[in-house]
Amino acid sequence: MKANNRNAPKSVVRRLPIYLHILDNLIENEVEIISSRELSDESGFTAEQIRKDLAFFGAFGTRGTGYNTVFLREKILKIIGLDKQTNIIVVGAGHLGIALINYNVTKNPYVNVVAAFDIDSDIIGKKILDVEVLPMSKMNEIVNTYNAKVAVLTVPSGQAQIAVEKIIESGISAVFNFAPAKLRVPEGICVENANLSVELQSLIYYTKA
Amino acid sequence: MKANNRNAPKSVVRRLPIYLHILDNLIENEVEIISSRELSDESGFTAEQIRKDLAFFGAFGTRGTGYNTVFLREKILKIIGLDKQTNIIVVGAGHLGIALINYNVTKNPYVNVVAAFDIDSDIIGKKILDVEVLPMSKMNEIVNTYNAKVAVLTVPSGQAQIAVEKIIESGISAVFNFAPAKLRVPEGICVENANLSVELQSLIYYTKA
Repeated sequence: MKANNRNAPKSVVRRLPIYLHILDNLIENEVEIISSRELSDESGFTAEQIRKDLAFFGAFGTRGTGYNTVFLREKILKIIGLDKQTNIIVVGAGHLGIALINYNVTKNPYVNVVAAFDIDSDIIGKKILDVEVLPMSKMNEIVNTYNAKVAVLTVPSGQAQIAVEKIIESGISAVFNFAPAKLRVPEGICVENANLSVELQSLIYYTKA
Repeated sequence: MKANNRNAPKSVVRRLPIYLHILDNLIENEVEIISSRELSDESGFTAEQIRKDLAFFGAFGTRGTGYNTVFLREKILKIIGLDKQTNIIVVGAGHLGIALINYNVTKNPYVNVVAAFDIDSDIIGKKILDVEVLPMSKMNEIVNTYNAKVAVLTVPSGQAQIAVEKIIESGISAVFNFAPAKLRVPEGICVENANLSVELQSLIYYTKA
């Protein structure tokens, strides 16, 4: 079960995994309590915004003390829906698709990649770790069988629109798009465009002294 | 040349490329003026924070009107140091390294990948687009020749610490780390840890209605 507030603003929802990532590091370093001020230093969001974000889902902190890292982490997991694994598919089994499967399978405990899909007959039938690469024609069946909720899209730009339409047809309504292409999707389909450059660009600032 | 304020808080610097990304989309859609309120809706940061961030570097907006998208974009490019290309190297020419080279070369006009490095003799000598894969022993020479400023680290966790020490030895002080490993680096070395899961996790929120 997850916290049942379905109406959180997208901006708040975007920040939750960032808090989660910070909490994971703090817990790894055996930090038990963190103030919104410290969370602000770690995240770059203002302490006020952090308090507002978390208050949106309930009262998780103690005034003047701060947040218990383990407790807050569990709450955020529930709120996002990461308290149980989400089945996802990867569409496009090229280098990026393979890299993301390796990365998520080994590093992201919250998702379970149930299959990868590609149009290349040389790749179809191969396995990436324990994830099989299947033809696009098998997508509907796999999505239904495993109740897959998210598609990670890593096909070339030119194939992205066709691929996303196939994904939507399979019943998936959330797409994490790595293809450098603007996707046209109907109402109710949530597309998150990955931008691998943002952190790299902020890093460049520090190289130009 | 770039704006010469070297003391921006890390949190501000992190947000600049996000503003830039939003401005790129706005300009692509021929939006000429944007208010801090609209930038807030797009970015998830408060309008007040955005105004503060930008005011940190100068007065770029017009009260009651907003920001000229093209003008603000050029200012931010200068501030970050993206007004001229930055030479970078990729360390680790596996699937992720190859994918990032393809991605950055084709999608990120601000960086120029001058070489990739690997320890695998099967990969050394190969080319990824026009980027050659070289042995680690060539790193110092290449970094000096091209004045490379950033290393993108995509080696397996087990090799990440050795690799980052080699990178630092070559004279690079900014590392974009994709390896799921905590790196120990001396003072003055800036490591940005990529987290490919954050956007995927926020997407999961919308799948658990």
